[in-house]
Amino acid sequence: MFDLTLLGMPDLSVFQYNIVDNIFSMTVATMGAAALFFFAARSTVGFAYRPALLVSGIVVAIACYHYFMIRHSWHNAYALTEGGGGYTGTGAPFNDFYRYADWILTVPLLLVELVAVMRLSRNKASSMLTRLIIAAALMIGLGYPGEVITDPANASMRWVWFGLSVIPFLYILYVLWVELTASLSTQPAAAQGLIKLARVVILVTWMVYPIAYMLGSTPAALEAASGGGGDASGIVGLQIGYAIADMTAKAGFGVLIYFIARAKTSADAEKGIGLNDVPQIAVATA
Amino acid sequence: MFDLTLLGMPDLSVFQYNIVDNIFSMTVATMGAAALFFFAARSTVGFAYRPALLVSGIVVAIACYHYFMIRHSWHNAYALTEGGGGYTGTGAPFNDFYRYADWILTVPLLLVELVAVMRLSRNKASSMLTRLIIAAALMIGLGYPGEVITDPANASMRWVWFGLSVIPFLYILYVLWVELTASLSTQPAAAQGLIKLARVVILVTWMVYPIAYMLGSTPAALEAASGGGGDASGIVGLQIGYAIADMTAKAGFGVLIYFIARAKTSADAEKGIGLNDVPQIAVATA
Repeated sequence: MFDLTLLGMPDLSVFQYNIVDNIFSMTVATMGAAALFFFAARSTVGFAYRPALLVSGIVVAIACYHYFMIRHSWHNAYALTEGGGGYTGTGAPFNDFYRYADWILTVPLLLVELVAVMRLSRNKASSMLTRLIIAAALMIGLGYPGEVITDPANASMRWVWFGLSVIPFLYILYVLWVELTASLSTQPAAAQGLIKLARVVILVTWMVYPIAYMLGSTPAALEAASGGGGDASGIVGLQIGYAIADMTAKAGFGVLIYFIARAKTSADAEKGIGLNDVPQIAVATA
Repeated sequence: MFDLTLLGMPDLSVFQYNIVDNIFSMTVATMGAAALFFFAARSTVGFAYRPALLVSGIVVAIACYHYFMIRHSWHNAYALTEGGGGYTGTGAPFNDFYRYADWILTVPLLLVELVAVMRLSRNKASSMLTRLIIAAALMIGLGYPGEVITDPANASMRWVWFGLSVIPFLYILYVLWVELTASLSTQPAAAQGLIKLARVVILVTWMVYPIAYMLGSTPAALEAASGGGGDASGIVGLQIGYAIADMTAKAGFGVLIYFIARAKTSADAEKGIGLNDVPQIAVATA
């Protein structure tokens, strides 16, 4: 049906190979450090906000594993050419699926993390998460078939899958913007500025994903990806773009969630709610 | 007595090899993430329910290890063919016993986890666990001899062991359904819906195991597994089926146990039982 691997790795210059390799390593470090931070910082926010930090920690722990494996696959896929003038494919495929496996697991959790820190009503949270998680599954499931098309003759199909995937992508951004805006009035004043910032951070960091996809979809990039020579900078741009987007949308966004949790913990303290006070858990009566 | 390995790995397409490889990797990530979650979430449920979450965490930690090793064995068992058109066996055996080792350790623990969150009376819990764990040992012990038969000439023996293994399997499902149903009246209202859901989740997720076994037992699958060419999709289906069943029956089921624990913690809070209040532990006087 689909090849699960990007076959025919393009020749890369030493610079191109190393910049991707180094970004992958930096992403492993960032995600691992963020995981330590979110796990350890749980006790510094109110009891009600700890699930949000816990889920943030799990998101970046999963990403840390996947970037470690992505980098391992990158090392297997390339070897220094004789004389050291560049890098050439070893024949071992570079496994692009790690990133999609990561997204399947972490995008729903990112949405849970956001809903958890907002502490929306149980019904509101449940309806919102259901819609968003279905949209996320569609976005990832429709993006993948396009991602693995590297044959320039099929370039139009790569763009068709992209177009299909963008529909649920835009839907998610729309719902998040509208719901975050609607919830502002119910949030403590100290958190409102941060939630307004979160709206913008989501928009900006998420927009890097389609840009990275497009960088890998140009005629030159596809020609390079299918082993026909040409300019590999689109392929390099795609890898760097996804890594930067993942760092900001997961680790960076998690830090913002932490600041929202801190602001809300402070606001709770003014109302007499202690750090370890257990809130009433609204239980569905169904 | 028995070969401890699936001998004669069938040739696979790039797609078939990679989908199994990627599902294994995703299972490692899922189990590892679930372990982090269950361990860290213990402090968010009442003292009485923490053993259930602790055992849930241990179950998925064991599974994380085994899937890492299963994947390692998969990598050793296969090599890309010259030209990269597919994967062929290296001669190194794929070790299917990791999965049975995992089940021997984790199935009894899964039953403990469920009994622990229900907080049945000591006598009830003890008699139920004894019966269920003996049945689980029989189920796994009788399934394994069939699992390693790949010679189409012995196909009938594969089905005999399957049939024997299904008897304790159905007994476990029957006991769990009956006992969960019987316990409903003693559970807080807020947890009853979740326990009804747990009955169904157990049935549905556990049914994937015999389906996966059957996928690997068709004439075509056995022919492929014994190196006689033929269609390897049954073998691929067996590996994917077991991985999905393990993810849902261990990590997914653990999340449900967590929600039950949360609902019961909430119900306890309404009765004035605090998060860290130590319950009276009923000690057998025998």
